[in-house]
Amino acid sequence: MSDYHYDNSEVDSLVKEYLPPVKGLQTTVIRAMDEAVENGGKRIRPIFMYEACRMFAEACGEEKDQWISDIAPFMAAIEMIHTFSLIHDDLPCMDNDTLRRGRPTTWYTYGEAMGVLAGDGLMLEAMTAAGKCAADSSNPARAAEAVRILGEKSGPRGMLGGQSVDVEMTGKPLTEEQLDFIYRLKTGALIEASLMIGAIIGGATQKEAEIMEKIGSCVGIAFQIRDDILDETSTAEELGKPVHSDEKNLKTTYVSLFGLEKAEAEVQKLSAEADALLEELPGDKSTLRGLIGMLVDRKN
Amino acid sequence: MSDYHYDNSEVDSLVKEYLPPVKGLQTTVIRAMDEAVENGGKRIRPIFMYEACRMFAEACGEEKDQWISDIAPFMAAIEMIHTFSLIHDDLPCMDNDTLRRGRPTTWYTYGEAMGVLAGDGLMLEAMTAAGKCAADSSNPARAAEAVRILGEKSGPRGMLGGQSVDVEMTGKPLTEEQLDFIYRLKTGALIEASLMIGAIIGGATQKEAEIMEKIGSCVGIAFQIRDDILDETSTAEELGKPVHSDEKNLKTTYVSLFGLEKAEAEVQKLSAEADALLEELPGDKSTLRGLIGMLVDRKN
Repeated sequence: MSDYHYDNSEVDSLVKEYLPPVKGLQTTVIRAMDEAVENGGKRIRPIFMYEACRMFAEACGEEKDQWISDIAPFMAAIEMIHTFSLIHDDLPCMDNDTLRRGRPTTWYTYGEAMGVLAGDGLMLEAMTAAGKCAADSSNPARAAEAVRILGEKSGPRGMLGGQSVDVEMTGKPLTEEQLDFIYRLKTGALIEASLMIGAIIGGATQKEAEIMEKIGSCVGIAFQIRDDILDETSTAEELGKPVHSDEKNLKTTYVSLFGLEKAEAEVQKLSAEADALLEELPGDKSTLRGLIGMLVDRKN
Repeated sequence: MSDYHYDNSEVDSLVKEYLPPVKGLQTTVIRAMDEAVENGGKRIRPIFMYEACRMFAEACGEEKDQWISDIAPFMAAIEMIHTFSLIHDDLPCMDNDTLRRGRPTTWYTYGEAMGVLAGDGLMLEAMTAAGKCAADSSNPARAAEAVRILGEKSGPRGMLGGQSVDVEMTGKPLTEEQLDFIYRLKTGALIEASLMIGAIIGGATQKEAEIMEKIGSCVGIAFQIRDDILDETSTAEELGKPVHSDEKNLKTTYVSLFGLEKAEAEVQKLSAEADALLEELPGDKSTLRGLIGMLVDRKN
């Protein structure tokens, strides 16, 4: 995504700015947090957040230095929360994964206790970064609302609520309602948060932030269905990870419930819905529209 | 502590106000969070926070309805964070405890994965409550600073940093430096946060908040040394839990390093230091002084 304002390595440095220095008696847990952040993926959430913020800030005539410094800690915070969720997902009591993106998972390197603590640490540093931002912000009320959204969309009403149903239903077939709930919360909620927080810091109204929330929901679900499709249709070479894993694990997916054709149609429908919602908003929508397109039509 | 403004059961209801209703597909994780909060202890942290806030708010002439509604979500948040830390401490990969205050621990009732998630959920709901408070507050900048303190004092620079060293050193003898670090961070940091947040929401200056931080540090360490002393000198009947557990577990404590006499002297020294610091502050210090005395001289 290097044609956008932030690429992966820039997000990497940004997050590290908000983490404690790797020193002190508690070096191990900080190093574990640090390495987990380094082993990052597409950095979708902070990049979406940035672009959402830019779109509104430019349309509202916000001062550039100000909105850039106001949004940065939230970009770091949402990536920390995403990383915390991956660290805990990999734990022996959850997915019991020893590798992530070709590298040993946190618990596999540092032990299970340190895996739990490194995840906890990233979550708490996310709160610290967000709080610091709010306190230093030119508009602390806006930033405080962003803190609330970050907590709510990450917690049991959001991502964690989806994860808890996923954990409870492991090995059991899912109903359509359960699958939809998991996709909407586990994947969708943090993308909703990214777009909403970007919008609010950029000066969006409450109503505009709600439209961004709906866009985030469409994008999150489409993203997850695309994942299901790629697992079925891609090769291990293209995808960079094993394919047909859902079928092997007897996992209920959108594809297993409705078939490939309907899955593809649903992605297109959700993508069109996101586009239409975007049209209701002010400012230059081209970058965000491009990002959404890349994400839902991706090949890996 | 029923002679203070909040007693245990009131804190219980207060925390529950900020938790999601026990319903929805994610009922299990919310119920686990709820029950962990119900199985509460002395509620020291929210009560300290309330009294610190009252002391400054009265001295600064803050409007009563306002400061009470501003401090409430932070009282809930700090108790949620304390409870999250207990849930994760009890996990099989940490202390592997099956009972807490005579009731089955969260992971023992709901399984290890749900234990991790219930802890995570409480931490994220703490952020939600704090953010919501800050957004609705009459003084969002003050509340945002409180969010930052809550994150920092809970995370790797605070409580979690202490816990990570404790975990790494399990089964090994501690040096004085390590023991001091663990007491200061694992126990002290959240008490510092309670007093600082109370002070800031109550209208304290930066310098006054720093004095409250020092008081919190003294009280936290004295509280922990008192724990060590009681484990050595009390009976199981008085204490309500097994005694001599530190000796049995070959745990380094202040008592094992320095002996009972020096431990008792250190508690009195820290307590006197807290009292002297309190004298530098405005307002009616009697309630806070009484609370500190109760805590460090307690019999169980």
